[in-house]
Amino acid sequence: MSETSLDPADWERFRRLLHDAVDGVVDDLAGVREKPAWRPVPQRVKAALREPLPRGGEPLETTLARFGELIRPYPTGNRHPRFFGWVHGAGNAPGVLAELLAAGMNANVGGREHAAVYVEREVVAWFAELFGFPPGASGILTSGTSMGNLLAVVAARDAALGDGARERGIAGAKLVAYAGRGVHDSVAKALRIAGLGEGALRLIAANAVSGIDADALRARIEADRAAGERPFLVVATAGSVDTGRFDQLEALADLCAGHELWLHVDGAFGALAIASPKHAHLVAGIERADSLAFDAHKWLHAPYAVGCALFRDERAHRAAFVSSPEYLGRSARGTAAGAPWYADYGLELSREFRALKVWFALRHYGIDALGASIARTCDLATTLAARVRDCDELELLAPVTLNVVCFRAHPAQIDDEAALDRLNEAVAIAVQESGAAVLSTTRVAGKRALRACIVNHRTVEADLDVVIATVRTAARDAGAAHR
Amino acid sequence: MSETSLDPADWERFRRLLHDAVDGVVDDLAGVREKPAWRPVPQRVKAALREPLPRGGEPLETTLARFGELIRPYPTGNRHPRFFGWVHGAGNAPGVLAELLAAGMNANVGGREHAAVYVEREVVAWFAELFGFPPGASGILTSGTSMGNLLAVVAARDAALGDGARERGIAGAKLVAYAGRGVHDSVAKALRIAGLGEGALRLIAANAVSGIDADALRARIEADRAAGERPFLVVATAGSVDTGRFDQLEALADLCAGHELWLHVDGAFGALAIASPKHAHLVAGIERADSLAFDAHKWLHAPYAVGCALFRDERAHRAAFVSSPEYLGRSARGTAAGAPWYADYGLELSREFRALKVWFALRHYGIDALGASIARTCDLATTLAARVRDCDELELLAPVTLNVVCFRAHPAQIDDEAALDRLNEAVAIAVQESGAAVLSTTRVAGKRALRACIVNHRTVEADLDVVIATVRTAARDAGAAHR
Repeated sequence: MSETSLDPADWERFRRLLHDAVDGVVDDLAGVREKPAWRPVPQRVKAALREPLPRGGEPLETTLARFGELIRPYPTGNRHPRFFGWVHGAGNAPGVLAELLAAGMNANVGGREHAAVYVEREVVAWFAELFGFPPGASGILTSGTSMGNLLAVVAARDAALGDGARERGIAGAKLVAYAGRGVHDSVAKALRIAGLGEGALRLIAANAVSGIDADALRARIEADRAAGERPFLVVATAGSVDTGRFDQLEALADLCAGHELWLHVDGAFGALAIASPKHAHLVAGIERADSLAFDAHKWLHAPYAVGCALFRDERAHRAAFVSSPEYLGRSARGTAAGAPWYADYGLELSREFRALKVWFALRHYGIDALGASIARTCDLATTLAARVRDCDELELLAPVTLNVVCFRAHPAQIDDEAALDRLNEAVAIAVQESGAAVLSTTRVAGKRALRACIVNHRTVEADLDVVIATVRTAARDAGAAHR
Repeated sequence: MSETSLDPADWERFRRLLHDAVDGVVDDLAGVREKPAWRPVPQRVKAALREPLPRGGEPLETTLARFGELIRPYPTGNRHPRFFGWVHGAGNAPGVLAELLAAGMNANVGGREHAAVYVEREVVAWFAELFGFPPGASGILTSGTSMGNLLAVVAARDAALGDGARERGIAGAKLVAYAGRGVHDSVAKALRIAGLGEGALRLIAANAVSGIDADALRARIEADRAAGERPFLVVATAGSVDTGRFDQLEALADLCAGHELWLHVDGAFGALAIASPKHAHLVAGIERADSLAFDAHKWLHAPYAVGCALFRDERAHRAAFVSSPEYLGRSARGTAAGAPWYADYGLELSREFRALKVWFALRHYGIDALGASIARTCDLATTLAARVRDCDELELLAPVTLNVVCFRAHPAQIDDEAALDRLNEAVAIAVQESGAAVLSTTRVAGKRALRACIVNHRTVEADLDVVIATVRTAARDAGAAHR
């Protein structure tokens, strides 16, 4: 450390260290297939990460070595080609490059006039083009779809309440929102944050393939209106997290237009099906949404965390989030130019340069190759479902509409549902702890399911065989242990 | 790109590219003083960043070259030793290293069992220790204090409303909050987002040195209670953004305890005065807050964006944000262990590995050296204020309590306030466009002020002379142009 700043006393020593770090990162990534898909964090590591606040410092080389010993060996696991848990992107090389460059620039993209703002505008415009949003649409990169859903709920709420909302809040307004059963929990959470409560969410029956029952939805809206409630929002799901189900967006857009409701699409991972010609039909009508939230760290594999929220009506978007105190005055020239500022479009005033990693990936791969990668993971899911069907000891629990396979171990000798639930919970843990693969669990029609969500661009067909074999072994071992 | 994945077909080629990028980043950082403090983004660059969505790809080398041509030359400016605009951290070398490593790991820190979760816990524990929060306190790293203030407002709101809040929302609850005039706008915005509206914020008179008038606050709370409102929250400011003012936290903590109100401290940059023994008295009593939000990308210089929110009562914190749908079930073992998950403590389910850059900085520098750096910037502000006082053409507009100097050009021949406002607006732009320095503007007691907020660890005394000389020249030029 220099005497007069926090900069390195010797930049060349820092340069060497950063080069060493590059070799560590590339070696780690290139060898990811050879490592466990996941492994527990040892108690020794947890204990070592409980030191008191450092008063004095240590050489950066020491900190780097500590990272290599305690942190790098215990990753989330999502980079591994047999990590099928939840919905996790696998990361990509352009993203690593971009994060290094962005850290060097240390931009604050809350506003003002500098290149990072224009990179974000380009990325948002690319997404608006991809989804067919009209000219005049606006958008912002978020940390992910939970945040995007919250932005949409707040913008829809304020649009429904009109001019007084900013000052008065929701007061006694009896706003209600609608979504299909199986909608992501972040939607109910957004309603809680926005002061409306989870009780404001009406869950409508939804079919595992065709999604929300539009007739049931229409009837519920009319009944609520008749009862003095104020319907304001329909949340459609493009790719449900449990089974990968798609609501019918054209029908919902018609219904929302007829009832003057805001249509928001939660497309966390599924919206990007639009990039695959074979799957784009699943999101037909998405261009008619009032807002859309989706992630770039899932099927586009940008490093965590980056998503996007798009809004059809820029004024409604900005009205919900803009503020202009004196100390943030905009000007036509100088550093404070660049209006509208991204702070006017979301919750954050200090904002990192999230756009660069998406910009690098879209330029380097092009959307067509990214779409082909998405299609490959769907093909693998179809293949995995076929392998499950071919295996007497396994049972497929839901049709595969996209990239999610819900199945369970079902040995012939067990027919008690509670026992099957326990068995499959044990199987999920055993598979994870084996290091061979990661599956998560969910419940499908009341049954405990193993859930394989294939997002990873590194997955190949041979990985599916490993997963099937690992599940079968784990089920036999667990069954034997339970006897 | 490989045929079967998005990974590089040749990892060694990618490794060379990343090494090239390291040299670019280090050269850029080591030379930051020699570049303009800020410069406008040319129209040519803005036009080049408006291409259609890339369908096909391009070599990563091409994308990197494009970054070097269009993006890197036009940064926010905050790394430069004479960037004094708003409150911007300058970045640091350990942060660049950490962001590279984090991008390689691609962790999702929303939850589950992996090392990044334990790094975040250690960093949160370090901050809790620094601020004297009790055992049992909880915390989460956020993108910054705007988000931290929102988390605090929501947690305080739900704590006031009790068990029904989750389901019913705020319904007709007449909740009101209090803060001193000059409180950051993100507090009013958080009340809007939370459904309470800006009208729920009572602005109390505040002195430029001693902060909120506690007697006026007490009287207002009692009057509101008498009128049937429900006071629930006092937001204290530790380092106001306009002048660097501190509210008296001990007095406010006493008052809140007596009235059963939640005390939140917005300490965006000022809270970290605690790390400097000479300035820690400014935040005496901060350990009594119910919640505290502050940034690590300002005075700790972690690359954007990272802040922290601390909560005295873990249960109140978690109650506001927890949810546990089936597909996110926690388990005692396996990948889904690691409860409580960070998703239970905030708005984000997908979360980047924000902790690593803070962990690297705190370990490498130690808090004492970071505190000394903070003290240096305060000394520089005092010195700058003295230079302003020594100069007939300049006028100091507020006492310097920390690191913020509000002043203006005030030529002897101009005494019209509107003309002085216009002059100083022109001076701010001219100084920015000169590339010599960046000052922002605010309003102090109705007067347009040039605002120098010295945060940068690279700033030295000679930089202050450059700023004074640049402002004087700009004021003379602008005065001549106006005549």
